[in-house]
Amino acid sequence: MTCSVAQCLDVVGEWWSLLIVRDAFLGVTRFDDFQARLGISRNILTQRLNHLVDNDVLKRVAYCDHPPRSEYRLTAKGRDLWHVVMAMRQWGDRWAAPGGPPVQTKHTACGHVITAVLVCSHCGETLDARAVTAIPGPGASEDGFDRTPLARSGT
Amino acid sequence: MTCSVAQCLDVVGEWWSLLIVRDAFLGVTRFDDFQARLGISRNILTQRLNHLVDNDVLKRVAYCDHPPRSEYRLTAKGRDLWHVVMAMRQWGDRWAAPGGPPVQTKHTACGHVITAVLVCSHCGETLDARAVTAIPGPGASEDGFDRTPLARSGT
Repeated sequence: MTCSVAQCLDVVGEWWSLLIVRDAFLGVTRFDDFQARLGISRNILTQRLNHLVDNDVLKRVAYCDHPPRSEYRLTAKGRDLWHVVMAMRQWGDRWAAPGGPPVQTKHTACGHVITAVLVCSHCGETLDARAVTAIPGPGASEDGFDRTPLARSGT
Repeated sequence: MTCSVAQCLDVVGEWWSLLIVRDAFLGVTRFDDFQARLGISRNILTQRLNHLVDNDVLKRVAYCDHPPRSEYRLTAKGRDLWHVVMAMRQWGDRWAAPGGPPVQTKHTACGHVITAVLVCSHCGETLDARAVTAIPGPGASEDGFDRTPLARSGT
């Protein structure tokens, strides 16, 4: 499917993968720490970590030679998922956190507890679903964006 | 698990659910149109639509009385997932769209093809993973955020 949302889901569209990435953003790097936090079987954790390394989201970095031990760190591609994790966190905070946000985000530069706000790259206005329209891009294919008539939006 | 990322995944952490929400943002409302676009079995589509309605992400709206027919529209809670879908789309555009973005986003107010930029709600600076620190919030629990020592970030 020619769709960047689907491409992203191909890499991290699985509960455990995204929770591993979430924990990596919280500073977790070692197998045993991921395992303790996620309560996941070693077998499945190994599979998901391998999948994330194969897709260049995490990289293995040796931290001990004798015995050989490595830890997992986010790559640039992995760090770029911060926006996705942040978006999910803020949605959960808003709609599914009756006791208040479990985790808050502090902006190092200004020192405040903040939320991340989406703004337009051109004019700087705040964005939401109703402020934008989707249009076919250069990578659009016949069987993707255009397959279904979308012109029913007035009905 | 006390974590807003996990709460979000509980509702939409499944390939089809998020692709249904993506299509809803593109203006798709009817069962047959979702089915044609996603190439998904009617059985699974029914399950996923019911799950999204049960979780107040989509609502059923009657559009015909004889015969009875309804369509699916995003609720306020569902529309608030736009940030998540947009974050995934931009990540896919950047890391997995060799032919260019299949879909582009036009900001209605300024008329430009844009990207959504994350900025700090307090100071307005652009944000990324390295600009922020996670701290426990009011909803934090012992077995959540604090369970694993996170102070290894200097090692």
